[in-house]
Amino acid sequence: MFQTYVAATSPDQGPPRLARLRAELEARGLTGFLVPRSDAHQGEYVSPHDERLQWLTGFTGSAGFCVVLPDTAGVFIDGRYRLQVRDQIDLGTFRAVDWPETSAADWLRQHAPQQAVIGYDPWLHTPDEIGRIEAGLKGSTIALRALDTNPLDAVWTDQPPPARGLVREHPLSLAGRTGAEKRADLAQGLKRAGVAATVITLADSLAWLMNWRGSDIIRNPVVQGFAILHDDARLDLFIDAAKVAALPGDEGVTRHPIEAFADALKALNGVTRFDPQTAPVAVQTLLAQGAPGADPCLMAKATKNPAELEGMRAAHRRDGVAMVEFLAWFDAHALDGLSEIDMARTLEGFRAATGQLLDLSFDSISSTGPNAAINHYRVTEGSNRVLEPGDLFLIDSGGQYPDGTTDITRTLPVGPVAQDRRAAYTRVLQGMIAMSRARFPRGVSGGHLDALARYPLWLAGLDYDHGTGHGVGAALSVHEGPARLSRVSMLPLEPGMILSNEPGYYRAGGWGIRIENLLVVREAAPLGDDRRMLDFETITLCPIDTRLIERAMLSADEVRWLNAYHARVLAELGPAVSEFARDWLTQACAPI
Amino acid sequence: MFQTYVAATSPDQGPPRLARLRAELEARGLTGFLVPRSDAHQGEYVSPHDERLQWLTGFTGSAGFCVVLPDTAGVFIDGRYRLQVRDQIDLGTFRAVDWPETSAADWLRQHAPQQAVIGYDPWLHTPDEIGRIEAGLKGSTIALRALDTNPLDAVWTDQPPPARGLVREHPLSLAGRTGAEKRADLAQGLKRAGVAATVITLADSLAWLMNWRGSDIIRNPVVQGFAILHDDARLDLFIDAAKVAALPGDEGVTRHPIEAFADALKALNGVTRFDPQTAPVAVQTLLAQGAPGADPCLMAKATKNPAELEGMRAAHRRDGVAMVEFLAWFDAHALDGLSEIDMARTLEGFRAATGQLLDLSFDSISSTGPNAAINHYRVTEGSNRVLEPGDLFLIDSGGQYPDGTTDITRTLPVGPVAQDRRAAYTRVLQGMIAMSRARFPRGVSGGHLDALARYPLWLAGLDYDHGTGHGVGAALSVHEGPARLSRVSMLPLEPGMILSNEPGYYRAGGWGIRIENLLVVREAAPLGDDRRMLDFETITLCPIDTRLIERAMLSADEVRWLNAYHARVLAELGPAVSEFARDWLTQACAPI
Repeated sequence: MFQTYVAATSPDQGPPRLARLRAELEARGLTGFLVPRSDAHQGEYVSPHDERLQWLTGFTGSAGFCVVLPDTAGVFIDGRYRLQVRDQIDLGTFRAVDWPETSAADWLRQHAPQQAVIGYDPWLHTPDEIGRIEAGLKGSTIALRALDTNPLDAVWTDQPPPARGLVREHPLSLAGRTGAEKRADLAQGLKRAGVAATVITLADSLAWLMNWRGSDIIRNPVVQGFAILHDDARLDLFIDAAKVAALPGDEGVTRHPIEAFADALKALNGVTRFDPQTAPVAVQTLLAQGAPGADPCLMAKATKNPAELEGMRAAHRRDGVAMVEFLAWFDAHALDGLSEIDMARTLEGFRAATGQLLDLSFDSISSTGPNAAINHYRVTEGSNRVLEPGDLFLIDSGGQYPDGTTDITRTLPVGPVAQDRRAAYTRVLQGMIAMSRARFPRGVSGGHLDALARYPLWLAGLDYDHGTGHGVGAALSVHEGPARLSRVSMLPLEPGMILSNEPGYYRAGGWGIRIENLLVVREAAPLGDDRRMLDFETITLCPIDTRLIERAMLSADEVRWLNAYHARVLAELGPAVSEFARDWLTQACAPI
Repeated sequence: MFQTYVAATSPDQGPPRLARLRAELEARGLTGFLVPRSDAHQGEYVSPHDERLQWLTGFTGSAGFCVVLPDTAGVFIDGRYRLQVRDQIDLGTFRAVDWPETSAADWLRQHAPQQAVIGYDPWLHTPDEIGRIEAGLKGSTIALRALDTNPLDAVWTDQPPPARGLVREHPLSLAGRTGAEKRADLAQGLKRAGVAATVITLADSLAWLMNWRGSDIIRNPVVQGFAILHDDARLDLFIDAAKVAALPGDEGVTRHPIEAFADALKALNGVTRFDPQTAPVAVQTLLAQGAPGADPCLMAKATKNPAELEGMRAAHRRDGVAMVEFLAWFDAHALDGLSEIDMARTLEGFRAATGQLLDLSFDSISSTGPNAAINHYRVTEGSNRVLEPGDLFLIDSGGQYPDGTTDITRTLPVGPVAQDRRAAYTRVLQGMIAMSRARFPRGVSGGHLDALARYPLWLAGLDYDHGTGHGVGAALSVHEGPARLSRVSMLPLEPGMILSNEPGYYRAGGWGIRIENLLVVREAAPLGDDRRMLDFETITLCPIDTRLIERAMLSADEVRWLNAYHARVLAELGPAVSEFARDWLTQACAPI
């Protein structure tokens, strides 16, 4: 079993730990200290070694930070975690700060004493992040100071060791290109840009570049380490040797201990690229001729090649079978008084039964009633609800398989469901279909398309407070940059990008709806004026509940899309599911 | 009659004039010279005094520039004018340069000799424009040089004098706020921003700020002049005294001759804002403490107040009556062998018959057959086509009335029209309806909405190579910044903005379609979750041809919108049109 349902922390752990940290800061002559959620690789998940924010404050969310001062300590959390943080931190000791409404700099100006010196660990923050705080402090007497050693680690006496997860090879049949080919491609790009080398610090970039998959952290098979790629395609790799001892060496790749990374950066004397949005600020400081620029793996990794796409399709067929088995089981047991945890466990069981599940791709969001209205809900024993007749049950889940990563959301009826919920469900589906059917010229970004998924909701005065979709890695991170289907993303979509398409609607305190498929951007088949256009291939295969649809609200084109999708799901999954599930599937895929 | 149909220039005027200019440049020790289309106020139209580009080259387009060198001269034109320029310039003397694909700097690097000194008139170029060229020339031996006097004006012996159009007052009943109130508002904004004064150089900003309307240039009732607004709301105005001699003075406004402007700029010693996108570069140079920032009139002018909106609505009712009379007449005469010019003249006649027409708001685009596929077509005696059975006739036109500015496009059938044209027409209409019906949260920009109007075309592999819409002034310029319905515009839409909604489709060499209404952004009525949303009020009143619609392609919601719109058009215009047109209107507005 991968997912656990216990609350990981309690509020009373924080105060004594904070006291120890403050004593350490005082001994070092520091007024305050920044405690980020991130590690040196800026991924969404961190290993137990790097759970500093949780250790100190009790807060377990996936984003946020704490600013420690002598008399107060602010825990900065975004809109998703406003409620959760109040259960997890000691509100007599810490104060929750609404972020980004209040910036770290503004809060420091308000709360830090004159001449305050605020320390930070330069391996845990990016240049952009520190630059923003410093810009906000301009003209004040408060100063930031990069520290050589982390004072929190000094007082965290039972801190787990750094992640040492074994690394396996990602076979060429799935990767599509050898590591050497990838390095040669990127090196050519560096040459063209007049850059002698680039620093790679993102753990999914490293995994992609090396054709490796790791186990340093849960849910994401990334590989923590650092690399310097030179413009002649040589790679210096800084990694715990034990993790890769069993793997053959690569021509042109030199392995070094992690500890050698800083000196290697110092020794570089050509123009060296670092990504100011994701690299540690220490990298910038150590480079003699640093040139800010995007990690060159980002776009190469985002635009999947045919082998990667074939792997993703296979993973989605397999995952679709598990989903269908679950949905058939669900319909038989939805009214049996089962709970959110029961549902998540059962689905995990069906995924495990494929014999290929390496991990979940994230903790399943298994939610019913008002819990489904909480965007980033994660069920615990404390929050667990039993499904009640009339409920909408929302399950957002995915698996990590050797060949691909999945992410799917379905919303299901627990017995008959009221008309207003069905109408909202239909509008969410209309938006989801509009995006799935989209065809668009090159140059169009996710920010240009986002409105297509919201328009049917907007017309009814409804909306959802999250992006329409995120990038997805190929047997990598389920949240992968840089492309998004989101109002803020102006990056043109490119063939091979994989994006989630997941509009929703949430009635706070009542119920929630989300429907999600993954889409691949591809060259569209010629049509009309044969402009070079792109469209989406849907790779998620799983019925979309038709019992919740208000049929009269759908246009003929929408009905046509849905029926064609269901015919395809039935044809592709029907032969692979159990006999019980096949009858269910046939009915679930019946044309409306 | 406002519109003329003669081609204004011929290619043979250019060579001798260019020879005279080159001699003048040589005498001044200059290698080359930049000849822009713009005047000091960067508007879309210029007065005859400022038609330097046309005088020199013969090119009459509304955008472009010429770079003169000793042995060659490049005429830089964008995609709209690639064909037109070849008919208008002497291709033995000038060369057409595709712009922005080729920048002025790149072209200079390729064609200018070493150590070239390229002069320019600093009153005719913006800081952004000159900055871009200088950035592109960095590292070369080519230098730009701002000149004290314009060498082209020196050799243009019969150059018309600067515009001296009389200025009239724009009554408070239409302007909604007094000039003093506007100045006080803007001055407050300057104070908040820590700016002592701002320079105003845009002719429509000046007209808006003073509640004046001018006649310096055709089609746009703007007022050419300069102003310095101080943070205490005092205004120094630099204007030809003769234009405003008949108008009473305003408290707090001091009139100066234009010639005093440069010295006044030099004398300013506080921080002074100038708009680097629209001010002359000379302004930047003359200011001791210039601070780049947007012209503060832009947003205030774009967000119309209730009085301005009421004026615009009245102008659109009046213009709608003229359009209906024209459309009724058109249907009776479309097959009579009439021409594009006949159509434009007749429509102008119906507008003039309202007794309130001050000018057209732009030269009507009256086009049939393949001419309708040319986005910025302007009919001349040479291009004039007779309407043929089966044609689509496209007419994009508008009027300047005392109370408002209109801009409307309708596409009409000349007898029965082929199915593929009707299908494309229906898709254009679907996009136009989708935008008209849009409801959206605050923060959404035209760039986010643009795709709504294109989606039905995209699905068929079709698109149009222009924005979906532009801002429109209230009894001012028909093309007004800063908001647009365009992929490139990320400015959030605000209540009171007026935008055109004009998707189209163009089959090159064949036929063209465009349908255009004007929309006002407004606070939407509460609905659904009562999020604070915006929607559009349609102010254009005129039937949309229903004979060209493929009824089966429309959704029920689209049909509902169209029928409701036509019911409103009939109710609002029916009582005001002639008896003949009323029968036609009743039929044209019949539900489909």
